[in-house]
Amino acid sequence: MNKKGRVTIPTDDSFIKETMEIVEAWGADAIRDCDGFKLPKEIKGIAEKIYSTYFVARGDNEWANKNRDELQQTYLMTKHILATCDTLEIDIMDGYFKEQVVPDSTHDIKKFWEVIDRTIEEVVSIEDWSYDKENQKVLIKNTKPWHEYTVSFLAYCIWDPTQMYNHITNNWGDKPHDIPFNVRGKKTNEYIFKAMHKWLDEHPDTDVIRFTTFFYHFTLVFNNLAKEKFVDWFGYSSSVSAEALEAFEEEKGYRLRPEDIIDKGYYNSTFRVPSKAYLDFMDFQQKYVAENVKKLVDIVHEHGREAMMFLGDNWIGTEPYGKYFESIGLDAVVGSVGNGATLRMISDIPGVKYTEGRFLPYFFPDTFYEGNDPTIEARENWLTARRAIMRKPVDRIGYGGYLSLAYKFPKFVDYVGKVCDEFRTIYENINNTKPYCGLKVAVLNSWGKLRTWQTHMVAHALWYKQIYTYLGVIEALSGMSVDVNFISFDDVKKEGIDKDIDVILNVGDAGTAFSGGENWRDEKLVSTLREWIYNGGGFIGIGEPTAELYGGHFFQLSDALGVDKELGFSLSTDKYFKDEVEKHFITEDVKSEIDFGEGMKNVYATKESTEIICNRNGDLMLSSNDYGKGRAIYIAGLPYSTENTRILYRSLYYASHKENEMKKWYCDDMNCEVSAYLEENKYAIINNSNEEVETFVYDGEGKAQLVLMKPAEIKWIEI
Amino acid sequence: MNKKGRVTIPTDDSFIKETMEIVEAWGADAIRDCDGFKLPKEIKGIAEKIYSTYFVARGDNEWANKNRDELQQTYLMTKHILATCDTLEIDIMDGYFKEQVVPDSTHDIKKFWEVIDRTIEEVVSIEDWSYDKENQKVLIKNTKPWHEYTVSFLAYCIWDPTQMYNHITNNWGDKPHDIPFNVRGKKTNEYIFKAMHKWLDEHPDTDVIRFTTFFYHFTLVFNNLAKEKFVDWFGYSSSVSAEALEAFEEEKGYRLRPEDIIDKGYYNSTFRVPSKAYLDFMDFQQKYVAENVKKLVDIVHEHGREAMMFLGDNWIGTEPYGKYFESIGLDAVVGSVGNGATLRMISDIPGVKYTEGRFLPYFFPDTFYEGNDPTIEARENWLTARRAIMRKPVDRIGYGGYLSLAYKFPKFVDYVGKVCDEFRTIYENINNTKPYCGLKVAVLNSWGKLRTWQTHMVAHALWYKQIYTYLGVIEALSGMSVDVNFISFDDVKKEGIDKDIDVILNVGDAGTAFSGGENWRDEKLVSTLREWIYNGGGFIGIGEPTAELYGGHFFQLSDALGVDKELGFSLSTDKYFKDEVEKHFITEDVKSEIDFGEGMKNVYATKESTEIICNRNGDLMLSSNDYGKGRAIYIAGLPYSTENTRILYRSLYYASHKENEMKKWYCDDMNCEVSAYLEENKYAIINNSNEEVETFVYDGEGKAQLVLMKPAEIKWIEI
Repeated sequence: MNKKGRVTIPTDDSFIKETMEIVEAWGADAIRDCDGFKLPKEIKGIAEKIYSTYFVARGDNEWANKNRDELQQTYLMTKHILATCDTLEIDIMDGYFKEQVVPDSTHDIKKFWEVIDRTIEEVVSIEDWSYDKENQKVLIKNTKPWHEYTVSFLAYCIWDPTQMYNHITNNWGDKPHDIPFNVRGKKTNEYIFKAMHKWLDEHPDTDVIRFTTFFYHFTLVFNNLAKEKFVDWFGYSSSVSAEALEAFEEEKGYRLRPEDIIDKGYYNSTFRVPSKAYLDFMDFQQKYVAENVKKLVDIVHEHGREAMMFLGDNWIGTEPYGKYFESIGLDAVVGSVGNGATLRMISDIPGVKYTEGRFLPYFFPDTFYEGNDPTIEARENWLTARRAIMRKPVDRIGYGGYLSLAYKFPKFVDYVGKVCDEFRTIYENINNTKPYCGLKVAVLNSWGKLRTWQTHMVAHALWYKQIYTYLGVIEALSGMSVDVNFISFDDVKKEGIDKDIDVILNVGDAGTAFSGGENWRDEKLVSTLREWIYNGGGFIGIGEPTAELYGGHFFQLSDALGVDKELGFSLSTDKYFKDEVEKHFITEDVKSEIDFGEGMKNVYATKESTEIICNRNGDLMLSSNDYGKGRAIYIAGLPYSTENTRILYRSLYYASHKENEMKKWYCDDMNCEVSAYLEENKYAIINNSNEEVETFVYDGEGKAQLVLMKPAEIKWIEI
Repeated sequence: MNKKGRVTIPTDDSFIKETMEIVEAWGADAIRDCDGFKLPKEIKGIAEKIYSTYFVARGDNEWANKNRDELQQTYLMTKHILATCDTLEIDIMDGYFKEQVVPDSTHDIKKFWEVIDRTIEEVVSIEDWSYDKENQKVLIKNTKPWHEYTVSFLAYCIWDPTQMYNHITNNWGDKPHDIPFNVRGKKTNEYIFKAMHKWLDEHPDTDVIRFTTFFYHFTLVFNNLAKEKFVDWFGYSSSVSAEALEAFEEEKGYRLRPEDIIDKGYYNSTFRVPSKAYLDFMDFQQKYVAENVKKLVDIVHEHGREAMMFLGDNWIGTEPYGKYFESIGLDAVVGSVGNGATLRMISDIPGVKYTEGRFLPYFFPDTFYEGNDPTIEARENWLTARRAIMRKPVDRIGYGGYLSLAYKFPKFVDYVGKVCDEFRTIYENINNTKPYCGLKVAVLNSWGKLRTWQTHMVAHALWYKQIYTYLGVIEALSGMSVDVNFISFDDVKKEGIDKDIDVILNVGDAGTAFSGGENWRDEKLVSTLREWIYNGGGFIGIGEPTAELYGGHFFQLSDALGVDKELGFSLSTDKYFKDEVEKHFITEDVKSEIDFGEGMKNVYATKESTEIICNRNGDLMLSSNDYGKGRAIYIAGLPYSTENTRILYRSLYYASHKENEMKKWYCDDMNCEVSAYLEENKYAIINNSNEEVETFVYDGEGKAQLVLMKPAEIKWIEI
């Protein structure tokens, strides 16, 4: 039992016999192709399903070259260039990769470009600049000496960023560059649907069209050295075009400025509190993309096939938590699983028949080389993802890369076989049942539902010094037995706060979309939260929560939190509250010095009532404060770790005044976690560590029994 | 020789003989009284001069009690109080010390008080609140639930803060509380001049009137537990009064709001970028105080005595670098010397005949107790101050406290005798001559000249976590052979930058008056600095220099600095410049890990041209960048130390492209410093350490010779 199904594998050239072996060992029921490699005919019949990658808007250079007026476009900004006299020449392509982008001077540059005096943030009159097309230079006259100027210009994209990345990374030499074409082009728009039909006709063996992806790539721009210059997994800059801008004006009733997309060179990073214009543009694109993707999906269905979306690459406009996504009618979404949060990002997607997680390691030579043990990465990946699977499973798992490479590592092949079995067992036990959630929590930021499990990310799942301290919170939540929601400031302002929410979290650096910036000047937001906490709600602020210097506070909920951050202005006020409590519910399990990650400087207690749980080097790191019937907890930062997951878990129960409820479906040892599936009358204990653990495990009545857990074990128990 | 003069000592009860011994041993020529103790008759003749402390506006409770309508006043703000329904009661004295202040409801409270809804920063209509005088409560109606409210109210001061501090600290029991009276009161204004005449008539033996001080105390407010609640050595809050506010309106043509003084509870700390209203109020008070102090000084002169001001306590309005100070015609200023910067703060004061520094330790039992060696503190105080004396000496030194206590420590008495001799020798050698300055540097902030040597201070010379990293720069400069100036943003905007300035420093945290905050949106300021640096100027930014999020930069001079700070918005932009230079001129003498104090997170190089001198844990700590013909250096922080003084010294020479000029009147060993007095044809080498040092010493031509310096030695050499 549990020996077959729910697993997708890649294959390789002349590898049929070995592929069959793996299909058997892992119980795979689907085989997929990979970038740069097409499935051989012989594969048919080996698995139940064949996935084929499909590119809607690239991979057809004949079309692209015939319709150069309908290529994709992007908005780019030059560096800030200093004027030292009253004229200035700006080489607009300086720092950009000429094989990727080329300035668009076909469309009216005086309409689509913008020259800005950044020292006073004023647009330079179109009379005062001209474009030297041959030398790709903008010439500005009447400049103010010692002011800095930038040019925002529309460019054509002549190389798809993902193919460019793979091409350069893998030295694909003179393999042609995929030129991305724009679905908004009249000719192209007709063409893609015809092409879809044609492709389906030509590929009768394909069961699942794995769209990789649709129309517009997230922002990924290379520099003049052919290295990454700018990457934003959520960026819309490369979804603009002259056509889109005209259509936007038609639909929304006002014209976007280049600056609405350029945003001083920040390009509306998800860390920016979004402007109305940018939100409008996103909505406009999501609507258009959804409508047109739906047509493609309908065609796929007409042909009796399934439509699967790869979560990434050209996914702009089809964000799975966006408001038009479900209308598309996709059958499935597949995405890459880097940890628990990315697993949940996939498994929680609404409105599709199934989801699939592509696990690590990717079968590439960077991991699969002689002397290395790829099992180590596989185990870590599995254990971090498994916590999240226990809360909400993906429907399938899979792998990517060169199967022939993985095949050379028998220990790895064996381990993955066990993972596949374990996954199927979990799935069988818990699918279609909601696990016990002790609390309902909500992560509050500018994006809300749209960026569910996707906060604080820059490129996809990469480590950045400025984010790991906050990502840890999301990662901890992804496998926690609480119900996690993502809500926006607008949600709170418009709809108030759901009665059944126990704890609201606000996590991030001051001024960012995740902390909230100027949103905290909004009296409706602030009042609603104060009232809600005061009447018994729990609030947890991490980093610089509710931060906006206003009205004599930096943290706008400082009254509830009982802490604020010293920016220098209130140094004259004596700070008396510094003594730590002797012990505290939140830190009861802490064994060593708490890791607050990047931490936070200059936070201090403002009230005698503030329970200071950790003060370090004169900075308050962890505290709690009662506010009316509610409670507000401050944490300086919380990178992901077993111990920090426990600290957060306890903080949630403490904030909601439900300390007495905590030890239900619970393990004393923080390496272990319990998920209970009451409808199915069973529960599971998982050991997230590679060590043997003996722990008390608590049932739903809080009755404890001692359980011995083998390394990484999962134990199923009938209630 | 050098055995007599320029030294002031305190004395004690029944201590004439011993006082004469000390006068002899230290060569003292002046004797002063102390707080709470009056000089005995017998002292006359022992020293050339007798100083007597004089309080203008306190110490006469008979007058104060007879004229309760002319007591001093202060503006106070309550805590932020949350409204949970549509009415709110605020106990305005909650958290204040009832023995210090009492609400003033004599003057029209609807005119002088203000109730503010801090959640929307709106003043509550005077119709909507009333005052319950008996219970000292403000009752507000029509409050918005979940908004926070504050009351700003005018109060009478009924205890002078300095006397209150001494009284409480020294347990003076039922000694009467000095009630401060307001010189703006019509009766009081007449009275103080008469009292001055009378006192002078009654004290014929006093040669020097030591004003301690004049009319208004810096802001020092205690809490309900009789502990310090708010302290700002520069604060004007306790100089307001109904009379002053009316006179202000008359003079400046507009009325101040309470909020102009209250400033959300920050009370216009010097860390706040000053508002126009606050600057106007300071100017208004300085003018008034100067005019009236001048009258007192004239009376003192009429009586043939000298007028000396103590720098501190009730010094508001007589800031020695303010524009009216010189007009007062004071003979002398005396102040407490905590280090080099405070020494220079005194010795650089313009427009007086002489200055005096009161050295540490104060002869109090906290230092002078059995088993402790007060010489240690004395030596440290002397060595840190001596560096500064070598640049610009005070004219006299002195001590305070109980002489009888110090007398019990013969080693201390002996050491101070040597200090006095050394001081006199220095003074004789260098007074009235300007030492060689290799560079002219300017510290740029919101305050400029007014706060010369007084930047980044909260209470006087106390350690605060948020300031020591920046104070170190000022301390290093105080003894450095460079010409130091303090200039304001307004100076630069109005007058440009002096041609002869080599290096401009901007030092402090973002948003503070010292970094500059919103000043950096001013195109005139930014352009002027860019042009000046570009044409060869040197710029050193420390902490968060030129910081204001605007136009796509956080550091507005990031183009010159070649660095910026990541606030999260530009995480999507790849940061490639991370490699440190192998060695660098600035850090040539560095022996261990550089101490950047609190340091700074998330600063990164923006340019390939940026020389990264120190990158630590992913944060750039020290760098330099060429900008046109000029140079801009970034330093994360620089607490005071011998090594950091050297780093700053080298940075100044590097920034100004004068590296080749550095080794003139210079020592290789960073424990030693050289000051050359070319008009006098001599130079001095000082050893700031308590170790023997052998070092090459360079003359004005850069010729080196090896010199052996004993611990703490000063060596005089003829050129």
